[in-house]
Amino acid sequence: MTFDPAELERSPYARFLRVTLVRQEDGLVEFRLPFREEFVRGDGADWLHGGVVAALVDITGDFAVATRYGSGVPTIDLRIDYLRPARRGDLVALGRAVRAGRTVGVADIEVRDARGDLVAVGRGVYAAPRQG
Amino acid sequence: MTFDPAELERSPYARFLRVTLVRQEDGLVEFRLPFREEFVRGDGADWLHGGVVAALVDITGDFAVATRYGSGVPTIDLRIDYLRPARRGDLVALGRAVRAGRTVGVADIEVRDARGDLVAVGRGVYAAPRQG
Amino acid sequence: MTFDPAELERSPYARFLRVTLVRQEDGLVEFRLPFREEFVRGDGADWLHGGVVAALVDITGDFAVATRYGSGVPTIDLRIDYLRPARRGDLVALGRAVRAGRTVGVADIEVRDARGDLVAVGRGVYAAPRQG
Amino acid sequence: MTFDPAELERSPYARFLRVTLVRQEDGLVEFRLPFREEFVRGDGADWLHGGVVAALVDITGDFAVATRYGSGVPTIDLRIDYLRPARRGDLVALGRAVRAGRTVGVADIEVRDARGDLVAVGRGVYAAPRQG
Repeated sequence: MTFDPAELERSPYARFLRVTLVRQEDGLVEFRLPFREEFVRGDGADWLHGGVVAALVDITGDFAVATRYGSGVPTIDLRIDYLRPARRGDLVALGRAVRAGRTVGVADIEVRDARGDLVAVGRGVYAAPRQG
Repeated sequence: MTFDPAELERSPYARFLRVTLVRQEDGLVEFRLPFREEFVRGDGADWLHGGVVAALVDITGDFAVATRYGSGVPTIDLRIDYLRPARRGDLVALGRAVRAGRTVGVADIEVRDARGDLVAVGRGVYAAPRQG
Repeated sequence: MTFDPAELERSPYARFLRVTLVRQEDGLVEFRLPFREEFVRGDGADWLHGGVVAALVDITGDFAVATRYGSGVPTIDLRIDYLRPARRGDLVALGRAVRAGRTVGVADIEVRDARGDLVAVGRGVYAAPRQG
Repeated sequence: MTFDPAELERSPYARFLRVTLVRQEDGLVEFRLPFREEFVRGDGADWLHGGVVAALVDITGDFAVATRYGSGVPTIDLRIDYLRPARRGDLVALGRAVRAGRTVGVADIEVRDARGDLVAVGRGVYAAPRQG
């Protein structure tokens, strides 16, 4: 199953961040967050703000489970572990649905910086759509 | 101890989100995130995007421990639990430093929507500044 | 609402640990874990093993939401933050249901050691009983 | 690097649970928790108590980073996601050190039940040993 990519376009917050969908398969998504000067930690800094990484983790985990449920679902909880600072440049995130149950779905997310280094890992729990 | 409020101004990401510091005391901070149309879940939606709440949790936790350490410190990990959807309108976040040790600091964060309802709780672990 | 305290007695793992219910109210529970020599970090050590604290957090969070749902429910995820080492002696844990929704319940847990110091905080998400 | 397996023997809590080390390599450990009747959810139940899974996650994550640091280190925080109920029988856990930095180490843990099904995933942050 997949989700309709137009769903991303309908999200003002995703447009605000200018996040783009690179690919989606069953249980797997890849997103890219193009670099903007507003994303660095301090003016002229070489490193990205942790909140930018968090925003990408959130969107990626949500759509990873969306590939299983057919559309985006509400986040129940989200966790992000920062492994090393992210260099200025585009971020790429890979999300995998590790579970898509009747009550909740669980996603694992990896974020890499422009050099390809793993800068953060995330895990999120999402509410399954109610069966009608 | 407190941190220099200008530190917030020097953060392009905080300016991008337009988050404002309402008050700071030893171990306590309050931030406000003024509503913007870009923050809703879908065009014209009544509810805010979870990533907006996450961004506010991140900044609030960081500065809560900054009141103890004297300046912002790197996030080690961050967790957000969404308790109910946040209505369109300003968000207010309260952050408390529950620990400021030699190795790490820990912060608890509460986010309320414009109606005053608790919409999310967060907890973050931050690296203590290295002693010189 | 409350749960039947006999439910705790019917849990072999709770008996194994010898955890006892101190009190329960709507949305609130208190448990005590009596000290045993098997709970220290190393033979003769002055400090308790983190896994013992984790076990108490787990049970306390589960029964905190059980006061709202009427019986124990499956854990979806659990997080424990260790704030300081726990001294040898009894542990006491206080659990609060911060949410008891249709899909999930959320509990906050505080653990104190024999001296009354806060040694750990926990947060858990639990699956709501299916309506039927 | 590895840790001295006798360290596990010196832990009363590990002996109490009767957890055994299956193997260790640099950054990787495998543990087995032999089934005991005390570990089930209710008398005669077919499923293991979540707290038993949590205890195994805790020990496995700690020793995964210990392969990098040379000895066990204090847990800063620990998270466990339960993916499906664990059947009665032995549990096996695999732990990987995903980071071993100067301030903290991070471990990922997978727990499988006797049938080989993935029943839980965990992630822990541990304090790096202080450099003398």
